[in-house]
Amino acid sequence: MRPELLARVLTLLPDQAARPELRDYYALLRDYPQRGGKGIRSELLLASARAHGVQEGGPDWEAALWLAAALELFQNWVLIHDDIEDDSEERRGQPALHRQHGAPLAINAGDGLHAYMWAAVHRAGVPGAMEAFLDMIHRTAEGQHLDLCWVERREWGLHEADYLEMVRLKTAYYTVVVPLQLGALAAGTAPHDGFTAAGLALGTAFQIRDDVLNLQGDPAKYGKEIGGDLLEGKRTLIVLRWLEGAPPAQREVFLNQMRRDRPAKDPAQIAQIHAWLLASGCVTSAQTFADQQAQMGLQALSEALEGAPDQQAAAELLRTVRTLASREA
Amino acid sequence: MRPELLARVLTLLPDQAARPELRDYYALLRDYPQRGGKGIRSELLLASARAHGVQEGGPDWEAALWLAAALELFQNWVLIHDDIEDDSEERRGQPALHRQHGAPLAINAGDGLHAYMWAAVHRAGVPGAMEAFLDMIHRTAEGQHLDLCWVERREWGLHEADYLEMVRLKTAYYTVVVPLQLGALAAGTAPHDGFTAAGLALGTAFQIRDDVLNLQGDPAKYGKEIGGDLLEGKRTLIVLRWLEGAPPAQREVFLNQMRRDRPAKDPAQIAQIHAWLLASGCVTSAQTFADQQAQMGLQALSEALEGAPDQQAAAELLRTVRTLASREA
Repeated sequence: MRPELLARVLTLLPDQAARPELRDYYALLRDYPQRGGKGIRSELLLASARAHGVQEGGPDWEAALWLAAALELFQNWVLIHDDIEDDSEERRGQPALHRQHGAPLAINAGDGLHAYMWAAVHRAGVPGAMEAFLDMIHRTAEGQHLDLCWVERREWGLHEADYLEMVRLKTAYYTVVVPLQLGALAAGTAPHDGFTAAGLALGTAFQIRDDVLNLQGDPAKYGKEIGGDLLEGKRTLIVLRWLEGAPPAQREVFLNQMRRDRPAKDPAQIAQIHAWLLASGCVTSAQTFADQQAQMGLQALSEALEGAPDQQAAAELLRTVRTLASREA
Repeated sequence: MRPELLARVLTLLPDQAARPELRDYYALLRDYPQRGGKGIRSELLLASARAHGVQEGGPDWEAALWLAAALELFQNWVLIHDDIEDDSEERRGQPALHRQHGAPLAINAGDGLHAYMWAAVHRAGVPGAMEAFLDMIHRTAEGQHLDLCWVERREWGLHEADYLEMVRLKTAYYTVVVPLQLGALAAGTAPHDGFTAAGLALGTAFQIRDDVLNLQGDPAKYGKEIGGDLLEGKRTLIVLRWLEGAPPAQREVFLNQMRRDRPAKDPAQIAQIHAWLLASGCVTSAQTFADQQAQMGLQALSEALEGAPDQQAAAELLRTVRTLASREA
């Protein structure tokens, strides 16, 4: 995220204590934010605020910055807990927090950071922002439940519609829909109804892009282990499409690996499945679907922004959104 | 908790969804609240509100009830996460949530419930309540960090002062200090400064009583496994006092067991340690210390309530608090 936003996040988090154990706790709170996330969602929020007439340095800018800080805090506490739930190895190029300190301390630090997120929302003092954050957390947790319970139950009898519902709930609300809405709220404007459909399509494109990068991204840029989704048994559009047409023998190897917990998976077999996926054309077809979703979302967003007070900033927001769906990291 | 408060908590939580997986998620959210917690903290909050002049059915009563519902939601999401962090077996006479559904789904459900807690705080619309909840969560998470990091590091070189600081942070704020303060806030009154010292002493008495019950409570009333604190490697005043004077051989058996993770602990050795603790007199001496803390706390609370507008309700509040420190469950 932009340096002044990180600085704002850090002013909210304590760092001094007489007890060394509490200084360690504060260091856990500060760890993920300081690993240098890209700040995609806060940039989207600020771009939306500008399109709605909030001027940098103007009277509502401060409130917009607090909401942006809150959104970054949301992202960070959710990532701490997600990494435990998925037993991920890496986050932003370093070991996940629970791999460094154990799950108990990491769960607790995520809870602490969650509360500091609400402190930032409170500091913003923007009417409607608390409701927007509540909706965002509810939808994200529902989507996360779908994802996790399918992993838990080894459920692979799923269709594209299931994946898309999961991704809308788990990713699209907090990545696009709510940032767009919060930008309007920071300007004292009721968010346009069209932001929901636009944000759901764009957020879907964003997540599919992430699924694609997880299989064929540049490890140096991506910051997570390439192929990690396979080890974590994640449902993706790519895998669901591949399963529909895969030769029975390959399908059997896949389902056999997916019945196992992560430590029991065979790295050689996972690498083989990875190669089958890349060779199948399903990565390309999923990217094509993502591009279509991005086009639809951009069109809908463009229409929703027609009445926005700052049309130059609205054009800038559309450019920001366009880069999201084609990102390399 | 009282039935009408449980009903209020449940109205806040969703239960209908087209997808069966989401109905399962909503059932996870509703599970712990429906297990019938005692509602100690919400009763304390409501008793404090009445002492500050809030009348049942009067204009501020509704706000007090929403704060009480929020406090119960706090207790429930914290318990879900605590049970994972401590890998507890039971909660309120049933298996802990993560033992029924796995840690990933339980962590996520705790996060969802945390957000619904904030929805209840928001519904109350009481100035100062959000700040009180933020302080409460920060202190509780700090205390939980102390407790967990000592377990993680197998740290037994601790003194009574360490235990007392941990217990004040982890238990006393959310059990007594903040419920007293929220009752005042519901009445539109600034909380008396004396509530902090009173609540810290009373909360300490409450936690030590819990530690005592964990070793010699009635399993039918207590709702958690008797001796569970030993299996979880918890620091208690009882154990710290016993360690100071224990025969070296017993001390060695104890530290040997405490170096092991829970599954590697030997139940026979744990039962032996349990018997040594009961025979040592340290349970009785800890209870005596708790009684002294309760006396000090009651005295301080009584003084802080001298100017409270409803003296009959203030006397009732003192009676409620007195029963807490001598509870059997």
